[in-house]
Amino acid sequence: MTEFINVGKRIPKSDAQEKVTGKAIYIQDLKIPGMLWGKILYSHHPHARILNIDTSEAEKLPGVKAVLTGYNIPTIKFGFYKDNTPLKSNKVCSYRDEVAAVAAIDPDIAEEAINLIKVEYELLPPVFDPEEAMKEGAPLIHEDHLGGKEKKPTNILNIPWKLVAGDVEEGRKNSDYVAENRFKVTWVTHCCMGTSGCIAQFDPRDNLTIYSNTQIPSLAQRDFTEALSAMGLQGKKVRLIKATIGGAFGSKLDTYPYEYIAILLAHRTRKPVKIIFSREEEFFATSPRQAAIIDIAQGCKKDGTLTFRDVRMVLDNGAYTSWGATTPSVMMMPISSLYKVPHVRYVAKCVYTNNTYSQAFRGYGNPQATFAIESQIDSLAEMAGIDPLDFRLRNANTPGEVTPQRFKVGTCGLRECIDAVAQRLDWRQNRGKRDGRGVGMASLIHVGGGARVYKSDGCGTIIKVDDFGTVNVITGATDMGQGADTVIAQIVAEELGVRIQDVVVTHTDTDICPWDVGAHASRTTFVAGNSAKMAAKKVKEQLLEVASRSLGEVPENLEIRDRMVFSKIDPEKKSPLGKVLRAAHYTTGGKMVMAEYFYDPPNENLDKEFKGNLSVTYAYGTHGVEVEVDKTTGQVNILKYIAAHDVGRAVNPMLLEGQVYGGAAMGIGYALMEQLVLNNGKVINPDFRDYKILTASDIPTIEAITIETDDPFGPFGAKGIGEPGLVPTAPAIANAIYDAIGVRIKDLPITPEKILAALKGKDSK
Amino acid sequence: MTEFINVGKRIPKSDAQEKVTGKAIYIQDLKIPGMLWGKILYSHHPHARILNIDTSEAEKLPGVKAVLTGYNIPTIKFGFYKDNTPLKSNKVCSYRDEVAAVAAIDPDIAEEAINLIKVEYELLPPVFDPEEAMKEGAPLIHEDHLGGKEKKPTNILNIPWKLVAGDVEEGRKNSDYVAENRFKVTWVTHCCMGTSGCIAQFDPRDNLTIYSNTQIPSLAQRDFTEALSAMGLQGKKVRLIKATIGGAFGSKLDTYPYEYIAILLAHRTRKPVKIIFSREEEFFATSPRQAAIIDIAQGCKKDGTLTFRDVRMVLDNGAYTSWGATTPSVMMMPISSLYKVPHVRYVAKCVYTNNTYSQAFRGYGNPQATFAIESQIDSLAEMAGIDPLDFRLRNANTPGEVTPQRFKVGTCGLRECIDAVAQRLDWRQNRGKRDGRGVGMASLIHVGGGARVYKSDGCGTIIKVDDFGTVNVITGATDMGQGADTVIAQIVAEELGVRIQDVVVTHTDTDICPWDVGAHASRTTFVAGNSAKMAAKKVKEQLLEVASRSLGEVPENLEIRDRMVFSKIDPEKKSPLGKVLRAAHYTTGGKMVMAEYFYDPPNENLDKEFKGNLSVTYAYGTHGVEVEVDKTTGQVNILKYIAAHDVGRAVNPMLLEGQVYGGAAMGIGYALMEQLVLNNGKVINPDFRDYKILTASDIPTIEAITIETDDPFGPFGAKGIGEPGLVPTAPAIANAIYDAIGVRIKDLPITPEKILAALKGKDSK
Repeated sequence: MTEFINVGKRIPKSDAQEKVTGKAIYIQDLKIPGMLWGKILYSHHPHARILNIDTSEAEKLPGVKAVLTGYNIPTIKFGFYKDNTPLKSNKVCSYRDEVAAVAAIDPDIAEEAINLIKVEYELLPPVFDPEEAMKEGAPLIHEDHLGGKEKKPTNILNIPWKLVAGDVEEGRKNSDYVAENRFKVTWVTHCCMGTSGCIAQFDPRDNLTIYSNTQIPSLAQRDFTEALSAMGLQGKKVRLIKATIGGAFGSKLDTYPYEYIAILLAHRTRKPVKIIFSREEEFFATSPRQAAIIDIAQGCKKDGTLTFRDVRMVLDNGAYTSWGATTPSVMMMPISSLYKVPHVRYVAKCVYTNNTYSQAFRGYGNPQATFAIESQIDSLAEMAGIDPLDFRLRNANTPGEVTPQRFKVGTCGLRECIDAVAQRLDWRQNRGKRDGRGVGMASLIHVGGGARVYKSDGCGTIIKVDDFGTVNVITGATDMGQGADTVIAQIVAEELGVRIQDVVVTHTDTDICPWDVGAHASRTTFVAGNSAKMAAKKVKEQLLEVASRSLGEVPENLEIRDRMVFSKIDPEKKSPLGKVLRAAHYTTGGKMVMAEYFYDPPNENLDKEFKGNLSVTYAYGTHGVEVEVDKTTGQVNILKYIAAHDVGRAVNPMLLEGQVYGGAAMGIGYALMEQLVLNNGKVINPDFRDYKILTASDIPTIEAITIETDDPFGPFGAKGIGEPGLVPTAPAIANAIYDAIGVRIKDLPITPEKILAALKGKDSK
Repeated sequence: MTEFINVGKRIPKSDAQEKVTGKAIYIQDLKIPGMLWGKILYSHHPHARILNIDTSEAEKLPGVKAVLTGYNIPTIKFGFYKDNTPLKSNKVCSYRDEVAAVAAIDPDIAEEAINLIKVEYELLPPVFDPEEAMKEGAPLIHEDHLGGKEKKPTNILNIPWKLVAGDVEEGRKNSDYVAENRFKVTWVTHCCMGTSGCIAQFDPRDNLTIYSNTQIPSLAQRDFTEALSAMGLQGKKVRLIKATIGGAFGSKLDTYPYEYIAILLAHRTRKPVKIIFSREEEFFATSPRQAAIIDIAQGCKKDGTLTFRDVRMVLDNGAYTSWGATTPSVMMMPISSLYKVPHVRYVAKCVYTNNTYSQAFRGYGNPQATFAIESQIDSLAEMAGIDPLDFRLRNANTPGEVTPQRFKVGTCGLRECIDAVAQRLDWRQNRGKRDGRGVGMASLIHVGGGARVYKSDGCGTIIKVDDFGTVNVITGATDMGQGADTVIAQIVAEELGVRIQDVVVTHTDTDICPWDVGAHASRTTFVAGNSAKMAAKKVKEQLLEVASRSLGEVPENLEIRDRMVFSKIDPEKKSPLGKVLRAAHYTTGGKMVMAEYFYDPPNENLDKEFKGNLSVTYAYGTHGVEVEVDKTTGQVNILKYIAAHDVGRAVNPMLLEGQVYGGAAMGIGYALMEQLVLNNGKVINPDFRDYKILTASDIPTIEAITIETDDPFGPFGAKGIGEPGLVPTAPAIANAIYDAIGVRIKDLPITPEKILAALKGKDSK
């Protein structure tokens, strides 16, 4: 592959120093003169009718500027299903339901006022199990929600998640071995170090500015614009300004009630209103990864060739609908396209319950589905008497393949990833001993070239170059800690022949930054990177054009490197870039170099059958793990962790490895310890004492292996890598545990208790 | 002339409500976490050698984070002549010289620390009169400044202000009447309601962000970049962010010592440092309009035809050199080109003294020169026995003329302005009575189509349009209260067929906004307006192109009005603009509409003889005034004030009239009452009690008359109008006073004392 000067280099994040020295301005740090503080009163019951809300004492408290309830605000509906409101009236459907809100001159007074609000409830029977909730006669969460052919009240959402490719019955008939299992995954939450928050402010003409740490500035702007319309403020503008984002991981991919509440409070008080979540609120009032019940069957021939995959899921939708309800769109991806499988069926039901509702979370359904698929691949291989390594190699995806969901596989380094993992784990040597140590592996497919889930998958870039060669890049992309700004700067620096420190990337303000669909689907390096590269290409053409005039050489013969323009054929003809720029500028009818580009990848929305080439290219990877399991305590110790990824091209190997390390660490938590525990709908571990994530000392050494397939569509060959690091972790660990001790845990997290119970069950057989 | 929908309308300023409700964020309001406060110690003497600075007590004061003097900072030179430094070492040359600076955790501690600094001086003989300062043996302000042919130490600056066109001696010979007079103008200051200030902050990589209320973001950025280089921070970047500007009027057209001091303190302390001027500092430590001595001779034929104009000036440069020293470049304009005059000579000397140094101020020399020219025109007319109205009409400039300075006059409504004033003053009726009431008039020429004083006179614009037809305009221009944002929004709205409220203009940040030479020379509506119009034109082409695809109509047949795209030939073909935009965006390979444009007007830098077509078009105007003079008190009462201006086209008549009202009010102050009084170099009236400006109740009714000449180069025909309202005010009033009581006051301001003294002198004759 071509060697580049800026691309491929281990360059620290452009804001690393601000972050480690405490200088970065997070939403927590932002203050606006005259600002009030908002606080929210949540429901005390999982399901209840609201009989009365008495806010009189709260209103009397000095310093309180507004008290809102669902009864004194305009009707605003939001969420994917438009079933959510900022403040609830009539009834509450979960502990997280917002019942009232206060704006006061300081947060303590707001908190005190919240405690003075008296709500009378009439309790309603709740339902917390989605399978129970599906049954006739179950308590209805939303009485007016009708479904099914008869349009009867139901808790089952009307989203027809169904993918059929080939004929699974036919596939089952042709199978020599069939595995059938039920897997369960539970709620885990993002654990962003920066809790959620916003500041809403209206100008005197009722235009809204909202400071936020959203991942979706353009779509949030649209959501809030709709809310303004609902408030009677049609045609008013929304400006969204991002603070430094202290982690997001999907949690900030949708708008939240607290944001609408801040907007309503700001409009009521005519003052800026800030709402910042406490850590407790961050745990119970943001939306976790969804709990799901997964029934899966897969079959194979004697030689291990996969014959079919048939998956049914029930997803606990909780009381309202956010992106969690749409994760099946991504679950389809591994179900249809991880390994070559001719017959595929996937049916999922999302069911309202009185639990918390769910959101996007890194991988967006993929880790859940891959846990079931890849755990079961090992079971199936065992049934067929085939080494799971050979089983995977036999079925591995290959370049040029078109999958049952009509994904067009371009570059594909899956085989290389599997091989690399096997080699690093010394697989043949270490496998199958059942001596308390074991190895396991699991693979992944993910979108790596955007994901056309919205009508546009685009990102815009504006570039201007000053008189001294400083390049300002204004991007639609969102840097939420993943290093987008740095990667975009590298791409632009590479394209233009300037230094990385000459490039300043701005991504903070919808008044300034072009449209972008958001930081999701591992799309930023690919889509925003391509957008930046193509804008830079236009800039470069202009640079060479003006240099051509200065140097008396045709643009085709000119090149720029390290801020020097030179002729490729005449070494005498050269000039510093700044000089060329100033010559072009400092003349009558002068020119300043600027350009813009809107890149929308040539991918496809899924059709009504949920088929289509969702992404321009796909990312593959395999994780391998060696574990040691203590049979007396059930404790799992990870001895070795190998993460091999087909990344197309590593634009910044250091940041890329950071994504892989972070993803694997999150995945290990998902596999072994993380769980948002709901007890009758109530989160009972809303803190880091009781919600266990890996600390630095818990994280094993993770070896990241980069397979570069130089994707022809990617910017300098790159694919997306934001999410994949998390996807195959849990099944790789589950498989290694099975290899170590012969028990298979099929519901996450794989706690010592579950291992001990399984060992006991196995011994008693 | 064509009628427009947005252009020509009386639309309030886009930020008017923010300003009247106190919501606008001025530099005074800005705070940054961890910010320190800087204060400056000024010289106690007008001219002295610094023997010692003892900062030990200041350094010991708790809360003080840094104490800087000229002895512990790197050498930074700035100003037009590079003769200024942030903090002075060796010697001080004026009371305003900065001797030491402190950064502390609050402003009171900083102030206290300043008072603890002890400076030992050795007094040097000062010189305050520029004519004295020119003499052999005068105290030298800068001993190392050499001048003249012999390169000897001198106070006379080496700027060869000399314009010669034709042969004034020949002109004098051909004259039937010659008037020769000495006029004097004195220091006046801008009196911005928002005092000067900045916040400087370094990032961990030593890049500087400076919050400022400058009029010249791009040039200030360059100045500060040079300062960083001098500090050993070569290649570091400067980002300049503008707060809302509380008036500027030229005072913020150059960088100031306090800004460099804030930068040095921020770098020393690694903290943001804010310096805000007190009102007293605003009076004595910003740079006023220059004091000058003007010797002028003009001649005419019997019929009033002007024969020559010969002007010599001495300008008091003060101790350092800012733009005040370059005002002769603009004084040349009326001297060479106001009225037709065949032979012209202008020679000016700028002389160092121990006074304050001067800056740009609305009109930039033009009011000073026009005071002399237009006062004397009346004298000359009287000598020739011609009504000054007829005298002016005889010599008035006309379209198509090329002036002695090689200005190419395009549109010219001077004659119409003179006529309009005469008519509104009932001139023939009211003139020449000497009964204590009198009428007077004076005219002006000014640049109206940019002014190529820098190597570029350009301004860039970037436009993006969102899915709903909101248009974001990112401009290089600076709105400093004059309403640039509103005018630019009107121009863009007109060009695109959207509503003014659909256009959001951003002008605040050099990381975002394209280059612009600055808000000076009445150029913003013309240059930034043309830039915005041309960017909008590119946007419109894209809009029509995408609409063409939606509507099945060729772009040439499409038009946009009120956010509706329609076919001019087929009324069935129409669509809301938002729908067209969304159709273009929400498709694979989608398009978002964006464009950028850099407009640099086709004007000329003056050549070595100070000749050339400085501006693309010229603004003309005539002010007329009727006064009543109380002979016992000397009090002048303005009964009627008429301001007629050739404005090309009034983009926003309300804002335009605001410029004329404000200009005339400032001009009346200049004529009658304003003066920064220097007593041996010390400003003795640094407050609004002793420095008299017109209050609202002092301002007479000003009737603004708009002559629209629809300039072919202007955006929708507009010329610049920011400065002209101030230019002819003083001579118009002086002429009216003369008409009322027969005395001519030739040095400003025309105080009651001077009138009484003149009346006494006249009576005693």
